[in-house]
Amino acid sequence: MIPIISIVGKSNSGKTTLIEKLIPEFNRRGYRVGTVKHDVHGFEVDREGKDSWRHRKAGAYSTIISSPQQIALIRTMNADTPLDEIRDRFIQDVDIIIAEGYKKGTTPKVEVFRKEVHKEPLCTGEDHLLALVSNQCFDLGVPCLELNDSKGVVDILESTLLTPRTLRNVHLKVNGKHVPLTPFIASFIEGSIRGMVSTLKGCDHLKSIELVITPSKND
Amino acid sequence: MIPIISIVGKSNSGKTTLIEKLIPEFNRRGYRVGTVKHDVHGFEVDREGKDSWRHRKAGAYSTIISSPQQIALIRTMNADTPLDEIRDRFIQDVDIIIAEGYKKGTTPKVEVFRKEVHKEPLCTGEDHLLALVSNQCFDLGVPCLELNDSKGVVDILESTLLTPRTLRNVHLKVNGKHVPLTPFIASFIEGSIRGMVSTLKGCDHLKSIELVITPSKND
Repeated sequence: MIPIISIVGKSNSGKTTLIEKLIPEFNRRGYRVGTVKHDVHGFEVDREGKDSWRHRKAGAYSTIISSPQQIALIRTMNADTPLDEIRDRFIQDVDIIIAEGYKKGTTPKVEVFRKEVHKEPLCTGEDHLLALVSNQCFDLGVPCLELNDSKGVVDILESTLLTPRTLRNVHLKVNGKHVPLTPFIASFIEGSIRGMVSTLKGCDHLKSIELVITPSKND
Repeated sequence: MIPIISIVGKSNSGKTTLIEKLIPEFNRRGYRVGTVKHDVHGFEVDREGKDSWRHRKAGAYSTIISSPQQIALIRTMNADTPLDEIRDRFIQDVDIIIAEGYKKGTTPKVEVFRKEVHKEPLCTGEDHLLALVSNQCFDLGVPCLELNDSKGVVDILESTLLTPRTLRNVHLKVNGKHVPLTPFIASFIEGSIRGMVSTLKGCDHLKSIELVITPSKND
């Protein structure tokens, strides 16, 4: 499972500015970063008059623009999507996810605080806080780092969240929700599936396996 | 597997205009539509100065903007992505995918042609063509429909691509590629997985099951 860190802070405290420093520091260390921006007010990313904008306007549930350099997906949602669901459904191929603007929830957090803008931090120390990045220190039971100490923040995140992975990764979702697996169960399921799949034509060199079972109309 | 139809045609023939008519017609019939726009020249969907734009600029491999109404994902790619890979990796929860601008490949196609703009159509009849939508008919061995006959086009697509699904849907990908399954194998794998998973805590009412096994660092 890709680890997530939330960069939190009151408005105008410098969350995006910190994220802009953390990403290149992670990249320098060989990690790929995905980011998630929480926008409670809604947004418009596409441009009026573009073909993809016209598709959406005509009622497309989702629209993709694909070029050799990048892919953009815009899709309808019916409710605010929790971070772990965003990760599970939309994010692949990154080592860490940096989220901006998710104050609630149990995701590990780093708070940004600037004394010029606010009187006291958002977090109280019981908020799964890993560090405070600030020009004024508070006793929140976590390290306090300077505003431009992106190396120090990445050191903490690397040692806390980017520990070597378990030998294998088995992720199971039932009815769209994650089911936690003990190592024994994970290994049992993996062994069974690998055994089944390895007997199929063209499945000699098994690396990743994805199996999706969706309900029939009679379910 | 979600069926895909490519709307093709020479430049300025009216592809987007046709798609704008097809989407509401599909919606009226109860189908959700996803669209894919092929943009060989690259594009910029995000807006300069926005937080998400700053994330990408700082080196994020992928960036998501999440609101209660919609989610946008922008991610780096290294090469042009084939339509079936786009479907498998990025598109969920729609009944049909309408692609614009994919002339090559074996996807079923509808061509748009207007005599005011071009002398002859793009397709020659051996291009997996299902219909020609035009104000001048050519003998391509497929039905020729009028430019505003979106109902007629959707009738053809509905009967050709949206046949009733099989009783259950079991999709297997190995090393990122689809593995075709016979009904017997699909049913065998499904039965085994359902049996395993149903013994786990909290998995009483099985509807959908997703199982992902990724390689360990030692693989």
